Amino acid sequence: MAAAVSSDGLGQEVPNKRVILKRYVAGFPTEDDMEVVTGTARLAVPPGSASMVVKNLYVSCDPYMRGRMTKHDKASYVPDFVVGEALVNFGVCKVIASGHPDFKVGDLVWGMTGWEEYTFVPKPESFFKINHPELPLSYYTGVLGMPGLTAWAGFFDVGKPNKGDYVFVSAASGAVGQLVGQFAKLTGCYVVGSAGSDEKVNLLKSKFGFDEAFNYKKEQDLDAALRRYFPEGIDIYFENVGGRTLEAVLSNMRNHGRIPTCGMISQYNLEEPEGVHNLFEIVAKRVRMEGFMVFEYYGQYHKFEQDMAGYLKEGKINYVEDIADGLEKAPAALIGLFTGRNVGKQLVAVARE
Amino acid sequence: MAAAVSSDGLGQEVPNKRVILKRYVAGFPTEDDMEVVTGTARLAVPPGSASMVVKNLYVSCDPYMRGRMTKHDKASYVPDFVVGEALVNFGVCKVIASGHPDFKVGDLVWGMTGWEEYTFVPKPESFFKINHPELPLSYYTGVLGMPGLTAWAGFFDVGKPNKGDYVFVSAASGAVGQLVGQFAKLTGCYVVGSAGSDEKVNLLKSKFGFDEAFNYKKEQDLDAALRRYFPEGIDIYFENVGGRTLEAVLSNMRNHGRIPTCGMISQYNLEEPEGVHNLFEIVAKRVRMEGFMVFEYYGQYHKFEQDMAGYLKEGKINYVEDIADGLEKAPAALIGLFTGRNVGKQLVAVARE
Ligand SMILES: NC(=O)c1ccc[n+]([C@@H]2O[C@H](COP(=O)([O-])OP(=O)(O)OC[C@H]3O[C@@H](n4cnc5c(N)ncnc54)[C@H](OP(=O)(O)O)[C@@H]3O)[C@@H](O)[C@H]2O)c1
Ligand SMILES: NC(=O)c1ccc[n+]([C@@H]2O[C@H](COP(=O)([O-])OP(=O)(O)OC[C@H]3O[C@@H](n4cnc5c(N)ncnc54)[C@H](OP(=O)(O)O)[C@@H]3O)[C@@H](O)[C@H]2O)c1
Repeated sequence: MAAAVSSDGLGQEVPNKRVILKRYVAGFPTEDDMEVVTGTARLAVPPGSASMVVKNLYVSCDPYMRGRMTKHDKASYVPDFVVGEALVNFGVCKVIASGHPDFKVGDLVWGMTGWEEYTFVPKPESFFKINHPELPLSYYTGVLGMPGLTAWAGFFDVGKPNKGDYVFVSAASGAVGQLVGQFAKLTGCYVVGSAGSDEKVNLLKSKFGFDEAFNYKKEQDLDAALRRYFPEGIDIYFENVGGRTLEAVLSNMRNHGRIPTCGMISQYNLEEPEGVHNLFEIVAKRVRMEGFMVFEYYGQYHKFEQDMAGYLKEGKINYVEDIADGLEKAPAALIGLFTGRNVGKQLVAVARE
Repeated sequence: MAAAVSSDGLGQEVPNKRVILKRYVAGFPTEDDMEVVTGTARLAVPPGSASMVVKNLYVSCDPYMRGRMTKHDKASYVPDFVVGEALVNFGVCKVIASGHPDFKVGDLVWGMTGWEEYTFVPKPESFFKINHPELPLSYYTGVLGMPGLTAWAGFFDVGKPNKGDYVFVSAASGAVGQLVGQFAKLTGCYVVGSAGSDEKVNLLKSKFGFDEAFNYKKEQDLDAALRRYFPEGIDIYFENVGGRTLEAVLSNMRNHGRIPTCGMISQYNLEEPEGVHNLFEIVAKRVRMEGFMVFEYYGQYHKFEQDMAGYLKEGKINYVEDIADGLEKAPAALIGLFTGRNVGKQLVAVARE
């Protein structure tokens, strides 16, 4: 594994498989918008620099990446990907060269890395050390990483749940949703989830302990379905999908209901997003709809990691992931998020080691 | 004024002019949906009852009354009016008979009364005493009454303003809007209002101290107008109108912006409400959109009344009202809210005295 240092001090040059963006996307992305190519990487850092080089073990597939595949005129909340360059996203990595005092060769870390075998990291400060390597390392792309913190912050800090609340979660079997449902149960709430297949619905009830679950693709009338599952109305709607689902939920909110607004995946590929027509419900029911971004909670990450590692070890939280093997499978895994092909948290194993 | 008690103990029977609902409304209401008729009233309360009879001095015209003119299958947040009965809404009244220990003949009060000359009030507890009769009594339908408390609660409690915030107010010259703008200035905010005529725009700048104001009917592109007035974006949008205005605002919110969601008057008469297509901005900008209802703040009314009476006497708050003379004018005054005919707070003088 250790790379022989080359004469110019920049380390051995090795082949580096990468998934690059081939073109900016409008509408639904396809595998063809990306390409798996082989470049090169240097396995050492420039002398005197505080950078590092990491070997990528697992990279995460996350819905927000869709936004980065489009060219924006006005800066978005996150930078656009660069055509011809590797995609970037959260991953679990091993440090193989470092000039940074806080990171040493062999450290296991997670942070924003490339969809490639080796990544040069100019600013290692944004990476987190992995404090629980006894748990599966892949968990740091999900339950112990960004999506886990998202579920935790969104449900507890934004949702402000009370025991006995009626909670609805959309995209409920996904990375974020499966955890929100289990947090709701730990809090003593009644929780119902929706998902896009019977297999997922089954998982929600049998594995994640949702009180009820339904396949939204089989419901002609989502409003009627929600009335059936929530005769008293909904106190907390954890919003993952937006559009028509949000509209149906708004009609079923209770007074003082809360909508932690995490994402709207049903809208990410539409060139003309759907309209929501019943926002007056926000006034009539005194609803609080509040957006949040996980990156504003990174300051609380270590507290979260500790709590979550505890829950996992005690068996209080179950977790399901969907692992694609090898960077070759990464483009299909990413676009599969938008058709619901993933069952549980989608990630890519770059190198199991 | 004192009515001779009749032999049956129920007081003199007098003619009672009333504005009744003629039929339930769909779409835009017309004067013809109401009718001014003459009934009768008794000017005494049944012996032993804790009810009261009031003489109505001023009644208020409020947008939310539109909802009460429609028959709802599912209970709304406020009861539907009854066809053939007088409309009911907030008014300023004089007690002319009372069996209630807290209210005596001659007291000036405000509360939920009828659109008629005399109203029998079975439960006087919901009425507030008027503590500042030295100010114009009509103010208790507005700046010292329900709309004043609405502006105060929505701006301060829901909006959570900070000095220096960029504030946008729609329907800005109306009962609520004119006060929100002035609260914003008292807080040290930058405030821009929109209204539907040049006369109103002028009033916003000259009388209410808005930093800027514009006539939304003259703007082809509301989004562009908002970008012009808020190059840095909007921290607080006080939402009075909904629909396309909300959509344009969402694109111009700043990170952590707040939308105290007070009402959506542009939607009240539409059989198919407009869709809002860019709700993902709530996630991207971490916006809090929160509905509220003034009736949840009545417990703080006396504190509010005292503060507001002080502001008015010190000249810190200006106030403009639009008074229709006599119940005959009430139907036109009410429907005028939906075409913007009112300049300032719309009310009806039933009897000046
Ligand atoms: N605010 C933040 O900081 C933050 C952070 C992380 C994630 N998020 C958001 O959280 C949400 C969930 O993310 P995740 O990582 O947990 O993804 P995920 O749920 O693991 O995967 C996406 C799932 O969304 C569902 N879906 C796709 N298209 C849909 C559509 N048109 N209508 C309804 N459902 C659809 C699919 O499940 P079905 O089979 O059930 O349809 C798919 O499996 C996303 O909106 C994401 O953008 C936000
Ligand atoms: N949540 C609560 O507890 C509560 C309490 C009181 C009031 N409210 C709400 O607060 C808002 C303002 O009420 P208010 O009493 O102060 O009324 P107001 O502003 O005095 O009168 C209504 C004004 O709305 C504007 N308007 C009418 N139709 C419109 C449209 N299609 N698009 C844009 N503007 C339109 C008109 O002004 P222009 O000439 O400027 O168009 C009209 O003068 C309403 O939405 C009301 O329902 C809520």
